[in-house]
Amino acid sequence: MFQETLEITTRGRGTLDITREVDAVVARSGVTTGLCHVFVQHTSASLILCENADPDVRHDLEQWFARQVPDGDPRYRHSLEGPDDMAAHIRSILSNMDLSLPVSGGRCALGTWQGIFLYEHRHHGHRRRVVVTVSG
Amino acid sequence: MFQETLEITTRGRGTLDITREVDAVVARSGVTTGLCHVFVQHTSASLILCENADPDVRHDLEQWFARQVPDGDPRYRHSLEGPDDMAAHIRSILSNMDLSLPVSGGRCALGTWQGIFLYEHRHHGHRRRVVVTVSG
Amino acid sequence: MFQETLEITTRGRGTLDITREVDAVVARSGVTTGLCHVFVQHTSASLILCENADPDVRHDLEQWFARQVPDGDPRYRHSLEGPDDMAAHIRSILSNMDLSLPVSGGRCALGTWQGIFLYEHRHHGHRRRVVVTVSG
Repeated sequence: MFQETLEITTRGRGTLDITREVDAVVARSGVTTGLCHVFVQHTSASLILCENADPDVRHDLEQWFARQVPDGDPRYRHSLEGPDDMAAHIRSILSNMDLSLPVSGGRCALGTWQGIFLYEHRHHGHRRRVVVTVSG
Repeated sequence: MFQETLEITTRGRGTLDITREVDAVVARSGVTTGLCHVFVQHTSASLILCENADPDVRHDLEQWFARQVPDGDPRYRHSLEGPDDMAAHIRSILSNMDLSLPVSGGRCALGTWQGIFLYEHRHHGHRRRVVVTVSG
Repeated sequence: MFQETLEITTRGRGTLDITREVDAVVARSGVTTGLCHVFVQHTSASLILCENADPDVRHDLEQWFARQVPDGDPRYRHSLEGPDDMAAHIRSILSNMDLSLPVSGGRCALGTWQGIFLYEHRHHGHRRRVVVTVSG
């Protein structure tokens, strides 16, 4: 078991491709066949696998979340931390804080069009802790 | 590999904090660095990570699900087991029956505000089986 | 760590029960107690646990996704690959490309009513690669 914590600074709501950073941890672990577990230690950011070629995909995904989980919904009771906070919690639960990937040939065995993205759901940027655990 | 099954009685729709129960399994496993996998063996309950400080967060989450995945939708064909059953299946798929957490220092390496919750989606309480597997 | 890649041909949008195929990999691995990780190497198909007895459940689930994540929404920018492509990406993120299951007694420790389904979100059938990794 090899474990490292990455600290990633986000620039506000949106996705950041962290595939390279995660694969670098796998490389440092020395594991060739196994599993890579990625975990964000927050409740208003998440980890997704997404199409990595056309940025419009992440734009359309973001717009879908903005429509389905609106910021500042007057029905939210939890509003003290800002209109985007409760929406960020719901978005994170729907898109998940944990992600597990197969490791093969010393790297994450992703499909051609899959990238690993840290999804910041708050409007302001934050310093996010991502724990990567590699077993094999 | 250390594996134990917890039996947890729910009191109807809503969330139950099971962080302490899961951490107790990790402690019994003797694993200090590794992974903890939590799994609910049902299709109308799920496992989520959620903000653990303000109960309004779980209230607002529940209300969001109630609006987006309504009970008793006349378009559901699967209705024999009650108006909440089909909604419970969809809610469980959206919020997941499996959850993996890093283990560090002999406990789940959660963020400060993260708790592990068993989410019952049926209106009546049930006895739910939760399989916890710890590796390290 | 035991790893195998399954190639599964889908027949267009809908769910395929792959529980038997996954359990066969677990049997070949020789693992009796551990974990089984299942991963689809695509961004328009996903893996879900779902009630396996009444096919109406999968029908109602599909209809829910069709309503909430409509094909051909004029607000999507990513539309060159067809009206179902962007919807397929969002559906896959909501229902997940990775799935982890406990292994007990040499097979996936599913609940009585749980089945493992490959969910094709495109209208046309595709050949999908599913990586299964068993540890124990």
